[in-house]
Amino acid sequence: MQADQLFVGLDVGGTKTAALIVDPNDVVLGQVTVPTRTANPDELLTTITRAIQAALAKANATSQQIQSIGLGVPGQVNPATGIVKLAVNLNLQTFPLGPAISARFKAPTFLENDVRTAAIGAFDYLRQMEPVQSIAYVSIGTGIAAGVVLNGRLHRGQNGMAGEIGHMTVEPNGHLCNCGLHGCLETIVAGPAIIHQMKAIDPKNNTQSAGDVYEAATQGNPAAQTVVQRVSQHLCRAIQWLIMTYDVEKIVLGGGVTHSGDAFLAPILGELARLRQQSTLAAELLRDEKLHLIPPDYNPGVWGAVHLANQMSTETITYISANDGSRSSLKT
Amino acid sequence: MQADQLFVGLDVGGTKTAALIVDPNDVVLGQVTVPTRTANPDELLTTITRAIQAALAKANATSQQIQSIGLGVPGQVNPATGIVKLAVNLNLQTFPLGPAISARFKAPTFLENDVRTAAIGAFDYLRQMEPVQSIAYVSIGTGIAAGVVLNGRLHRGQNGMAGEIGHMTVEPNGHLCNCGLHGCLETIVAGPAIIHQMKAIDPKNNTQSAGDVYEAATQGNPAAQTVVQRVSQHLCRAIQWLIMTYDVEKIVLGGGVTHSGDAFLAPILGELARLRQQSTLAAELLRDEKLHLIPPDYNPGVWGAVHLANQMSTETITYISANDGSRSSLKT
Repeated sequence: MQADQLFVGLDVGGTKTAALIVDPNDVVLGQVTVPTRTANPDELLTTITRAIQAALAKANATSQQIQSIGLGVPGQVNPATGIVKLAVNLNLQTFPLGPAISARFKAPTFLENDVRTAAIGAFDYLRQMEPVQSIAYVSIGTGIAAGVVLNGRLHRGQNGMAGEIGHMTVEPNGHLCNCGLHGCLETIVAGPAIIHQMKAIDPKNNTQSAGDVYEAATQGNPAAQTVVQRVSQHLCRAIQWLIMTYDVEKIVLGGGVTHSGDAFLAPILGELARLRQQSTLAAELLRDEKLHLIPPDYNPGVWGAVHLANQMSTETITYISANDGSRSSLKT
Repeated sequence: MQADQLFVGLDVGGTKTAALIVDPNDVVLGQVTVPTRTANPDELLTTITRAIQAALAKANATSQQIQSIGLGVPGQVNPATGIVKLAVNLNLQTFPLGPAISARFKAPTFLENDVRTAAIGAFDYLRQMEPVQSIAYVSIGTGIAAGVVLNGRLHRGQNGMAGEIGHMTVEPNGHLCNCGLHGCLETIVAGPAIIHQMKAIDPKNNTQSAGDVYEAATQGNPAAQTVVQRVSQHLCRAIQWLIMTYDVEKIVLGGGVTHSGDAFLAPILGELARLRQQSTLAAELLRDEKLHLIPPDYNPGVWGAVHLANQMSTETITYISANDGSRSSLKT
């Protein structure tokens, strides 16, 4: 017999969706990962529904026991309405995903952008080790973006876009980015960009992933080393910017590209050391211990979603679902 | 007969110090500007003391009527101890300026970095016109730095350094900056840097100020136009970064370089328009109305200092002066 207070978290990605169910003490009761189907909104809803049902089955629980649901979604999210916009990877232009899930499971459902959600998870992870109050979580995968926690709370910004560093111009004459601008950070520091840079230097190379490039660099491949150095310098500058603008206690790095571990981290630390040698200010602000790497076996996205569900369920402001008039507790 | 609740604000600069005295309704009772003497800490204390006394005299008031004093200081400030560090322009390495002023006037004294203080003043200025909650104030003068107000409160960061964008690397192979790094934003977008760039293109030009360069550009001088275009592009990128990282409602521009008015603003708006044409994301986030120019006759630094004094005097946490054991109300 389970408690009647289960929290469900989902990390909804373009290719797969992870679901996690915990009790109020964060004890894991069930977790699954399923492929994401994005042909139309109904298929996406079916993906999410099945992921929750499969996780409930693993937890030997029923949907009646769900206290609340949290979802991290790759797009622009309005937490007050549950509407998702511009979720290109989910094939959604504008869709009331929160109300739809809330209606299916008759449980309050809370949405946030996926990287902002992962920042909550990264913050909670770090808090288990040290009493930090402010972090910038940088996710480096298909793209690069940050989520920022200040004074223990997620900083969303006016449009929920705070931390969208992937589209900061770093090379005005650089490659065209998906966003329409040239030389965005994302055209250099992100998985596809790393593969692209490798193939630009060595067209015959059969690199399949950023991990392959980092692996080749540690084995002495000159082309891979050139790419890794360039990526690390730009990432180091992004870290410097985040520290200079937010003055946060820690920069936490996560996402697929960081899973190369030492091969990923060592060149960044080398670049930070170079800056410290040049500048007193850098020596004070850019210390190695500022950086923290999320281990590959911790998924900050799905943990952040669980904690979003848990934290938000104590808020008291309500909204009316666009679809069915049902009410859910939501934060303004 | 004046009220017994006067608030004193000071904007302490490397060359001049402005003092302002207001009543609790922000009615101006006295204001002065005096040259700053920085040969040693005692001379600086004398400067500040005389500025306050001169402003009191204009207000027909005595020091007994002072409720509290606020100071904006160009350096790293610890508000909890009143100690100033690394104030190069004031010739102070480490000095307990807050306790010293507090002891002289027997009034609670509150310190903050000058740009952070001016951000409070800029925020209050904008609030008189529209109900904003979050701004980034960018000061462009001898250097460039930002101060950030989020949810109506100053965001200081862990070390009180949030917004130090002047030392973000923008050209890794660029000019050596005072901080020791190469190609900091401040080596391009700041008064001395603008003069330097003008003389680099046209060594015979007798430009004395950034204002001269902006003036020459509007009159068709090609060298000046090249410099203004370069400065505007870099400033536009800095604005883009601040919006992408903080997602604030407004970017407020102030400081000596901005006093060229339209000659300063027009090329920035042109650059923003260019980015909007290229990108949907830029079109959404980088609208003209995001920018606000502080008029030259409003000094956000000294108004911010007055409001610092006013706001902080309602806080209840106390600290013990390093010099004389006197207590002042201070925020942690």
